[in-house]
Amino acid sequence: MKVPPLDTLVAGIRAGDRPLLARAITLVESERQDHGELAAQLLTTLQPYVGKAYRLGVSGTPGVGKSSFIERFGMMRVAAGRKVAVLAIDPSSRVSGGSILGDKTRMQQLAKSPGAYIRPSPTSGTLGGVARKTREAMLLCEAAGFDDVIVETVGVGQSETLVADMVDDTLLLLLASAGDGLQGIKRGILEAADMVMIHKADLDSLRAQRSARELASALRLMRGEAVPVVTGSSVAEGGLEALVALGDGRLGEASAASREARRRAQEVRWMWRLIEDGLVQAARRHVAGIADDGESLEAAVETGQVTARRAAEQVLMALLTGPSTNQPSTNQLPTNKTKKDDERKSPDE
Amino acid sequence: MKVPPLDTLVAGIRAGDRPLLARAITLVESERQDHGELAAQLLTTLQPYVGKAYRLGVSGTPGVGKSSFIERFGMMRVAAGRKVAVLAIDPSSRVSGGSILGDKTRMQQLAKSPGAYIRPSPTSGTLGGVARKTREAMLLCEAAGFDDVIVETVGVGQSETLVADMVDDTLLLLLASAGDGLQGIKRGILEAADMVMIHKADLDSLRAQRSARELASALRLMRGEAVPVVTGSSVAEGGLEALVALGDGRLGEASAASREARRRAQEVRWMWRLIEDGLVQAARRHVAGIADDGESLEAAVETGQVTARRAAEQVLMALLTGPSTNQPSTNQLPTNKTKKDDERKSPDE
Repeated sequence: MKVPPLDTLVAGIRAGDRPLLARAITLVESERQDHGELAAQLLTTLQPYVGKAYRLGVSGTPGVGKSSFIERFGMMRVAAGRKVAVLAIDPSSRVSGGSILGDKTRMQQLAKSPGAYIRPSPTSGTLGGVARKTREAMLLCEAAGFDDVIVETVGVGQSETLVADMVDDTLLLLLASAGDGLQGIKRGILEAADMVMIHKADLDSLRAQRSARELASALRLMRGEAVPVVTGSSVAEGGLEALVALGDGRLGEASAASREARRRAQEVRWMWRLIEDGLVQAARRHVAGIADDGESLEAAVETGQVTARRAAEQVLMALLTGPSTNQPSTNQLPTNKTKKDDERKSPDE
Repeated sequence: MKVPPLDTLVAGIRAGDRPLLARAITLVESERQDHGELAAQLLTTLQPYVGKAYRLGVSGTPGVGKSSFIERFGMMRVAAGRKVAVLAIDPSSRVSGGSILGDKTRMQQLAKSPGAYIRPSPTSGTLGGVARKTREAMLLCEAAGFDDVIVETVGVGQSETLVADMVDDTLLLLLASAGDGLQGIKRGILEAADMVMIHKADLDSLRAQRSARELASALRLMRGEAVPVVTGSSVAEGGLEALVALGDGRLGEASAASREARRRAQEVRWMWRLIEDGLVQAARRHVAGIADDGESLEAAVETGQVTARRAAEQVLMALLTGPSTNQPSTNQLPTNKTKKDDERKSPDE
């Protein structure tokens, strides 16, 4: 990939130049070291222009109609004069033809609309990496002047949690159940939802409404708070009215202050996520590199040859630089973590 | 604290000497660096004698009757000729008189029984630290020849997850509900339970049975698998029969092979937990140490002055030693984590 210089990228993105935006997203998706450095500079430079869009996460298992929902909802927003970017987090997608947004045939109207921009999911890396790339693509889209960023995700649970940590609202699409309630829906998906829509409600309106009631009650029990549940359709006329009616405090209408507070907390969580991922990754590389007659440290712990505590000490001593290396001891273990540390570690629990 | 030499501790524990066991537990609870080193040596030396006991976690909110259950159940086991150790994880307990097992008045019979040993929860440190200490106390009790280790925990959710990762079975005690189902029960508690007992069922047997049915069905929906739910009483005659009847494959009767497999996986998870905690703690100390005009890196990220990515890079570069420091780049970020890494990171998801 031939990468344009920083100035060109910044100016192009600020001017809403789609090809340059696309190249910038490819840049943040790249795993080359020099690209990583340029990407970090680009994001830092564009930071002042980021944060004005409404960020909506859309989750749901395959077949629930996410594409038709995003197409319908996106066209409504475009019709209202808003510029809409659609991104995706799909760790299962591959260059060979991702299962999600791999092409634009799923959202034909929106793909043709000059007010919309559709970008497939990053195609390589693990979930954490894919999520980071999508989040940074979202920031680039915002700097490029998009008013709405819709992040689509597949229903694997963990990805929903990551999406919830980058958007203002997460909408979960479900189909009316055949009486089996929440069976089969991954926990993470239910936990991450700010609102739920029983989709394709035009097929059987009464059943959809019954499902919505059951689900609302189950969610209240499970989460200890009410979660808005509506029925809707992306093909019937007025099918999204109930969802849009939620708009009071939802769907982009949330008060600027509360949204800002949520975003600040999300930003700090992202920093910690990146730090923790980087540290754990370094630890994993290290542990993978320790091989004694083909037996790893992990295997030694598993078979009881080394205690978990000794193994952890060994890894920590080898990895950490600075004052910690001078005092290799259980002081590095969680023993003396402070209350405050714990609170900061898990702001989302 | 005057600590006996390693040999004395090892011999004393192996001989089932209670005062020496108590001092050894105090040693693993200590946060002094030299104590930490001796504790690690002690655990390594005793490793071959660890692992023969049945480990039962007992959780439930205050008032549900955990003490009376443990007293009754423990006395049953003692009567069957088993030696029973009772430990606790209660991050809220303090030296001044812990809320849980702070004294032995709650389990008077068991406390007097020569076959039983009751140890209060470690009184300082965060949940992670308290859990580590309790886990190591459990290992010491096993080396001292106890046949059953019962780990009591309060219902805060996170502690239940930690307990589940150190025991063979987790029993959740609940009271018959007043029709509000799972309301108020923390998610982590429900997820960690291998079996549930509606306690104090003698008060209203029909209601207890109805609650048990409702709960069994709710748990099946929530977890996608059946979880045994029984009713019981620690005061009525035969009140624990239903629980003991679960014994087929439960309550210490689980096949040695499946228990061993679970324990091996737990051991590796503990190693990673200790590594991750140590790394994150080092990162937190580092971030806390970076102050520019009184403003921390976290605050800079929160207010948008530094991007999450830049901040994470900075922390990773400063912390990590070895090859990583030579190549400070986004290679340290989750981008190029492998599938295998991810699987190993979350064996419990």
